[in-house]
Amino acid sequence: MATPVTPASKEADPRVERSRRLILSAALELLGEVGYGGLTIEGVAARAGVGKSTIYRHWDGRLELVEDAVRLLKPDATPVAAGPVRERVIGLLQQLALALADSTWSRCLPAIIDAAERDPAVLDIHRRLTCERREVLVGLLAEGVARGEIGRDADLSLLAETLVGPILVRRLLFHEAFDPADVPRLVHQVLPPV
Amino acid sequence: MATPVTPASKEADPRVERSRRLILSAALELLGEVGYGGLTIEGVAARAGVGKSTIYRHWDGRLELVEDAVRLLKPDATPVAAGPVRERVIGLLQQLALALADSTWSRCLPAIIDAAERDPAVLDIHRRLTCERREVLVGLLAEGVARGEIGRDADLSLLAETLVGPILVRRLLFHEAFDPADVPRLVHQVLPPV
Repeated sequence: MATPVTPASKEADPRVERSRRLILSAALELLGEVGYGGLTIEGVAARAGVGKSTIYRHWDGRLELVEDAVRLLKPDATPVAAGPVRERVIGLLQQLALALADSTWSRCLPAIIDAAERDPAVLDIHRRLTCERREVLVGLLAEGVARGEIGRDADLSLLAETLVGPILVRRLLFHEAFDPADVPRLVHQVLPPV
Repeated sequence: MATPVTPASKEADPRVERSRRLILSAALELLGEVGYGGLTIEGVAARAGVGKSTIYRHWDGRLELVEDAVRLLKPDATPVAAGPVRERVIGLLQQLALALADSTWSRCLPAIIDAAERDPAVLDIHRRLTCERREVLVGLLAEGVARGEIGRDADLSLLAETLVGPILVRRLLFHEAFDPADVPRLVHQVLPPV
């Protein structure tokens, strides 16, 4: 069992919590740099400037450490609260494009996808985080249906995947950033006016 | 420099060529199983049932071996030659969905994406193969524009990425297969009748 990310009461000592955060942040940095296969407890300890024993005090091993680190990569997908749904979808996808262009999450994403292939615990966390992200967009699209901005017969999960698809494909398969300025064209293509 | 995949004249010996193929196939198997970070010349030699020296006779090291192996993963995207463009797009995307559900390429894809992050030579090969795949679909869409089946103002590269996006997102982010039976719905959503 991995130690939960939220500090347990026995770990309320701010120095201990600071050390945990430092180690998790070093683990994410290294994950992006060397990938899951290249990540070692030794490497994380060296990057965080702590001894290996400090890491083993918090986590049983590499897997538990990566689990906690990946949990830190929370989706920061927050649509604006009001306005036409189409505009808010554009804003949300532009957030995604910007995050994929440059963020710890984006740098770690290929390593996490690779790790999820080989490690059921990473798979489980990654699938859950991805579903959370999708649900934000699906919720927004459902509002669009309710307001008559999107046709009633649309499959909203598929529609959400169609909207994020090109942005993710550009990052993962072409290893390039999707220009946020191209997002309106993408949304117009996938969500033509009713 | 990696040895080219096509047999050089000095290597026309069929036993040598058979050994090369065996090693490349073992490398792809292992790439899918352990990822780029976990791939070693020792592991490939053991899987192929050859000595390490046999591998070093053909390749300078792991990178050159992976380069050649990834080159073998040619896109087998071949659209049918005639018929309405929409039907042929559906057929091509169903090929992609099936390949992503179960193929050596699909098993290696997360490892290749991860390797491309860290290795400019793998990045270069992967980007090239991905572009070749996209061009097949873009060519088909251009035919659709010429025949009046797709609107003239469409951005065909973006349209191609929008069509393949959900299929790849399902594989890479949800770690699930996209059901080929859902492809017509996807195409209808992205390419509504003109």
